[in-house]
Amino acid sequence: MHTLTIQTKPAYPVYIGSDLIRNTGSLVQNLGDFERVCVVTDDNVEKLYLQTVLDSFGEKVQTASIVIPHGEQSKCLASLGKLYDFFSEQKMTRSDLIIALGGGVVGDLTGFAASSFLRGVKYVQIPTTLLAQVDSSVGGKTAIDIPAGKNLVGSFYQPSAVLCDIDTLSTLSDTIFSDGCAEIIKYACIYDASLFDLIYQIHDRDILEKIITRCLEIKAEVVAEDEKDTGLRMILNFGHTLGHAVEKKYHFSTYTHGQGVAIGMVKITKLSEKAGLTAPGTVKKIAELCQAMKLPIDCEISNEELFDICCLDKKNLHHMIHLILLKEIGSCFIHKLSREEFSDFLNQ
Amino acid sequence: MHTLTIQTKPAYPVYIGSDLIRNTGSLVQNLGDFERVCVVTDDNVEKLYLQTVLDSFGEKVQTASIVIPHGEQSKCLASLGKLYDFFSEQKMTRSDLIIALGGGVVGDLTGFAASSFLRGVKYVQIPTTLLAQVDSSVGGKTAIDIPAGKNLVGSFYQPSAVLCDIDTLSTLSDTIFSDGCAEIIKYACIYDASLFDLIYQIHDRDILEKIITRCLEIKAEVVAEDEKDTGLRMILNFGHTLGHAVEKKYHFSTYTHGQGVAIGMVKITKLSEKAGLTAPGTVKKIAELCQAMKLPIDCEISNEELFDICCLDKKNLHHMIHLILLKEIGSCFIHKLSREEFSDFLNQ
Repeated sequence: MHTLTIQTKPAYPVYIGSDLIRNTGSLVQNLGDFERVCVVTDDNVEKLYLQTVLDSFGEKVQTASIVIPHGEQSKCLASLGKLYDFFSEQKMTRSDLIIALGGGVVGDLTGFAASSFLRGVKYVQIPTTLLAQVDSSVGGKTAIDIPAGKNLVGSFYQPSAVLCDIDTLSTLSDTIFSDGCAEIIKYACIYDASLFDLIYQIHDRDILEKIITRCLEIKAEVVAEDEKDTGLRMILNFGHTLGHAVEKKYHFSTYTHGQGVAIGMVKITKLSEKAGLTAPGTVKKIAELCQAMKLPIDCEISNEELFDICCLDKKNLHHMIHLILLKEIGSCFIHKLSREEFSDFLNQ
Repeated sequence: MHTLTIQTKPAYPVYIGSDLIRNTGSLVQNLGDFERVCVVTDDNVEKLYLQTVLDSFGEKVQTASIVIPHGEQSKCLASLGKLYDFFSEQKMTRSDLIIALGGGVVGDLTGFAASSFLRGVKYVQIPTTLLAQVDSSVGGKTAIDIPAGKNLVGSFYQPSAVLCDIDTLSTLSDTIFSDGCAEIIKYACIYDASLFDLIYQIHDRDILEKIITRCLEIKAEVVAEDEKDTGLRMILNFGHTLGHAVEKKYHFSTYTHGQGVAIGMVKITKLSEKAGLTAPGTVKKIAELCQAMKLPIDCEISNEELFDICCLDKKNLHHMIHLILLKEIGSCFIHKLSREEFSDFLNQ
């Protein structure tokens, strides 16, 4: 088992390894003197791991669980209300513990509920998808969707611990596994060229653990530097600006998040290579790795559509577009453009 | 005009004086380079001050407003969803500004919406009731109610500025004015004996401004010490534990918050005098001042009811009851009791 520490205030541990879920109770026992644990999960994950998590707590702790339907449509205000009602029924206090067991939807929704119920109850993330393990479970960004868009409501609220049990990854479908690979490729692109080459061997179990650990080390460094996402943390959005536009154009149903990110990384790097801002040959390397990971690298979307959707994005402070571009594999920079400059960049 | 600084991170100013609302635009102009301002208010306050606030911004800033029905029933998840939708329609970004114009309901709801929309947009409080001016607008506790109870959901999120325009207090009904007096008496009881005597002259306008300023100085000191409400800040709950039980027993309809607090301060001090923990004669002084401020000092509620309701309160960490008791007027301490000890204390 690897252990990382995320240096936010307060700091918290991330455990990465095998057979962690069965030991949930002992891994979280130093978090406080809680009497109650509420586990939030979805109907897919429930069948696989819920009972194991509950059984890991001895008789001294009261456990309860609530199951939400799987899928993005659960990340809404109505589900949030159901969690609040459930926590109330269970008489949760500020000194009890909430556990998010599942993928990004469960983690984001539960994190926001935990941050706001009684103005903050401790919570632990047990991410069960590759995407959630390498990305959304660490860093404290919680969110729900509203009719106007995805992740438009949420909080910055760090978990008290994260348990990345890599055994859970063996039950993932190819599509869900690939989804996480896109974020892994992203980390390599912006931060670590040696990680980039390692990804080709991701189906080796030991290498997989090494890769997840390295991704989380990178995320830990970035988040510790910029917890509230006002500067450096933007580099984690490499591929996300155009990727989000792709996802949105197709109403978040044709492409998964990872697929959008893959297309976004290739598209933006193609443009920045053309503009002479990125080392020649970079886009070819990214495209090859994405394809090896069964990720798409292009789709039908016009420059006008990309422009319009990106300009509506919440991250565009003061109407400047902040693009994350690569110098080369392993090294990135923030490139700020006005709307006009961004239009020129797209249409060069 | 008095100006106080609340030393949270980041720090923010509280302005106290006359004719502030007409100058909202200039008082907040140093908060950032925002393009849009959204004002949230209720249907009572709208008629009195909304246009004045909007007019105070020049033509460089786009203004918009949303009006919610007055009263506690607006402090709910459904209203929160409406605010999110409105902010989205207005294309608010993280660098724009939200203003809460009204009493505690508007302030608490808007504060929570501001803290969570895009994971945090700056907001300014313009409290228009005495209670909101001396208490809820400062300190960053935001909240909504859920079916299980009042204020069970919310966040700690400090405003960027607070404008206490004392001109707004002249339009308040006697009941609403008295409501605020209860919190003022609370500050005097826990922190400042000289403030206690001054309250008898509250209907003098200059004294009123002085009193509000002094209350906010006290709140500022306490909040700066304990922003997240884990220690010292509990002293602001003097009278609130039993007061909340009184409010709840009568379904929050018979007694206002201030009336509940007045009854709570008298009840708890009667008990602590009896237990020899408070200087003799203290309860008599508090009861006299409450009555002079047209506040009730007693009501029908049994010790069993007090016990049951208090033991359900979210503030009771690890099932210890934290009572705030007075040594004498102007000086308080935290008294921790187990449930059994609390029962004995009630039934002594």
